[in-house]
Amino acid sequence: MSTEFPHIPTPDAATHRAAEARHLELTKPPGSLGRLEELGVWVSACQGQCPPRPFARPRVVLFAGDHGITAQGVSAFPAEVTGQMVANFLAGGAAVNVMASVAGATVRVVDLGVDTDAELPEHVTAHKIRRSSGSIDREDALTDAEVDAAIAAGRALADEEVDGGADLLIAGEMGIGNTTPAAVLIAALSGSEPVAVVGRGTGIDDQTWMRKATAVRDALRRARRVSAHPVALLRTAGSADIAAMAAFLAQAAVRKTPVLLDGVVVGAAALVAEELAPGASEWWRAAHKSVEPAHALVLEQLNLTPILDLDLRLGEGTGALAALPLLSMATRVLGEMSTFADAGVSEG
Amino acid sequence: MSTEFPHIPTPDAATHRAAEARHLELTKPPGSLGRLEELGVWVSACQGQCPPRPFARPRVVLFAGDHGITAQGVSAFPAEVTGQMVANFLAGGAAVNVMASVAGATVRVVDLGVDTDAELPEHVTAHKIRRSSGSIDREDALTDAEVDAAIAAGRALADEEVDGGADLLIAGEMGIGNTTPAAVLIAALSGSEPVAVVGRGTGIDDQTWMRKATAVRDALRRARRVSAHPVALLRTAGSADIAAMAAFLAQAAVRKTPVLLDGVVVGAAALVAEELAPGASEWWRAAHKSVEPAHALVLEQLNLTPILDLDLRLGEGTGALAALPLLSMATRVLGEMSTFADAGVSEG
Repeated sequence: MSTEFPHIPTPDAATHRAAEARHLELTKPPGSLGRLEELGVWVSACQGQCPPRPFARPRVVLFAGDHGITAQGVSAFPAEVTGQMVANFLAGGAAVNVMASVAGATVRVVDLGVDTDAELPEHVTAHKIRRSSGSIDREDALTDAEVDAAIAAGRALADEEVDGGADLLIAGEMGIGNTTPAAVLIAALSGSEPVAVVGRGTGIDDQTWMRKATAVRDALRRARRVSAHPVALLRTAGSADIAAMAAFLAQAAVRKTPVLLDGVVVGAAALVAEELAPGASEWWRAAHKSVEPAHALVLEQLNLTPILDLDLRLGEGTGALAALPLLSMATRVLGEMSTFADAGVSEG
Repeated sequence: MSTEFPHIPTPDAATHRAAEARHLELTKPPGSLGRLEELGVWVSACQGQCPPRPFARPRVVLFAGDHGITAQGVSAFPAEVTGQMVANFLAGGAAVNVMASVAGATVRVVDLGVDTDAELPEHVTAHKIRRSSGSIDREDALTDAEVDAAIAAGRALADEEVDGGADLLIAGEMGIGNTTPAAVLIAALSGSEPVAVVGRGTGIDDQTWMRKATAVRDALRRARRVSAHPVALLRTAGSADIAAMAAFLAQAAVRKTPVLLDGVVVGAAALVAEELAPGASEWWRAAHKSVEPAHALVLEQLNLTPILDLDLRLGEGTGALAALPLLSMATRVLGEMSTFADAGVSEG
C-alpha cells in the first residue's frame, strides 16, 4: 500500500437531514437530549442509514510501541513498563480491559515497536515494525522504509477490523514516553511553542518536565522543517505506533467507519491523519478533553468538541471507552424511541 | 411513617481511605483516571467495602405527577402529555427506557399525582396521592395529610427498592409543568430571584416564559414564608411527586444506598431532602449539569460537581442514566484492575 489516501467522502448529508427530522418526531421535547441528539445524527449519517443500527462490534485497537526519547529521561516510568503493560492488556488486567467490558467493546493489542525480549503472541507482533524509535531530539524516529511500513500496517489494521465487522473504531496507545513525540507533532502542526504543549504525562516532576521540554524544543527544531509533509513528519518526530495510528484513523474514514478519539497521543496521530487524508476528521468525534495541555490544541485545530471532561490522562483508549456508552445511547435513542404518532402522545 | 428522618451516617471513612490506597496500587499512573477514581472511591465508601462490588441492580424510580400551575399556561405541552408519557414508559418507548437498557438499569414508574382517567396498572398507582396539585401561585399544592402521605410514599419506595436488592438508585420524573414548582423550591432554598431560576423547560416561547416567571414570582411569595420548614415548603410549593422524590432521596441515604441525581426537578427535590435529612447529599453524586438555569444553583448549594455537561433538559432520569456507565466503570476499575505487584509491572 502507498502512503497516498483516496479522497475522503463526507458522512451522508441526506441521512443527516433524515435523522434530524426523525429526532423531532420522537417522544421528547425537541432538542432536549442536547449533545446526544447531535451524536445520534452523526452516527446515522456515518452509517448512511436512518434510523441507525446499534453498534454490533465496537473495537479498540491498542497501538503499543517504545520511544527512543526515553533515554533522555522524559518519563516517570521506565521504558520496560511498555512491554509489561502489553502483557497486562493480554491478561485483561488493565483499565482498558475493564472499561471495554463495561462498554461492550473488545480490545486488540498490536505491537508496532515495543522494546522487549519477551515472547509475544504472533497475533500481537504480526505488524511489528522495529524495536523502539530514534531519539527524536537528535535523530529521525524512523527510516523511510519503516514509516512506509508503519502506515501500511495502520491501514491494514483498519481494513482488517472493518472487514471483520467493526462498526465503531477506537485507537488506543501504550508507550512510555509517547506524550513527547505527541507534543512535538502537535506543536509542529499547530504552530505552538514547546511550553504550550509539554504536560506532565504519566505524572512527572519538575526536573523531568524540564528535560522533556528541552527534548521537545530540540525535536521541534527538526520537525518544523518537514511540518508540511505528514509522512516526513512522522518519520522525523513520530514513531511506528503513532504513524500506524495516523494511518488507521485515516483509513477508518476511507472505510466510512465512525471513530471515537481518545486523548493527546491519539490526538497527535489524528492531526497528522487529517493532513494525510483531509476530511477524515468528519468521521471522528472527540470522546474527552485530556488534562494534557496539547490536547486542547488538537481539539481546536480539528474543530472537535469533547463529549467528556473528566481529568483523564491515562490513554490506552480509556477516554474513548468512557464516552462509548453515550454514543451507544445516542444511537439507540434515535433508533428505538417511539414517535409522538406511534405512542399517541400530543406534540407541544 | 413520620416526616422525621433519623441521623444520616456518612459513607465509611476507613473504606474511603482503603479505596484511595488501592487506587495507587493499580496498573496506571496515580490519578490518571481523574474523576473516575473519585467516583470509584465514593462507591466503595458507600458500600463500606473495598474493592467495591459491581452494581447488581441499578434502578430508576420514575415519579409521575401533574401540576395545577399548568392552568396558568406555563408549559409548551398540554397536561394530558403526563399521562400519555406514563403509558409510553410502560410500553418501553421513551428515552428513559432506551437509555436504561444501554446502562443496564431497570425502570419503575410510579403515579403520585397524574391527572388522567386512564386505567393504569395497580403497581403504578399503588402510591397515588391525588390527581394534580394546587395552582401554587395562589394556593397550596397539597393538604397537610397529602404531603405527609407523599413523604411516606417516597420513603416506602426507597425501602422497597433497597429491600429488593437495588444498590444504586436514580429518581426520575415526568410531569408537564414540573419545572415551575422546581424553580420555586430552588429559589426559596437558595435565596434567589425568580429571573434566576426560570428556564425554558420543555422549550417554551417568550410569552409562556413571561407567564411562568409571573407564576414563579407569585408562588415564591407564598413559599418564602415557610422556607425554613421543608415539609411545609413541599405542601405550599411542591407536589405529590416532588415531595415523594425528596423523601426517596433522603431515605436512600438512610439506607446507605448511593444515588445518581438527574436534572433540575430532581435537584429541587434533593435540596429539600438535604433539609429533611442533613447529610443525605453525601450519598449522592450529580450526574450532569442541566440547561435549566436553576440547576446550577442546586449544584452549588449542595456542593456537587456534575459528571457530565451535555446540554440535556429532558428529565425522566435520562441525565443520571447517561452517567451510570461511568459510575459502573469507576466501580469496576477499582474492583477488577490488576495491581502493579500482581501484573509484574514496574512502578514509577
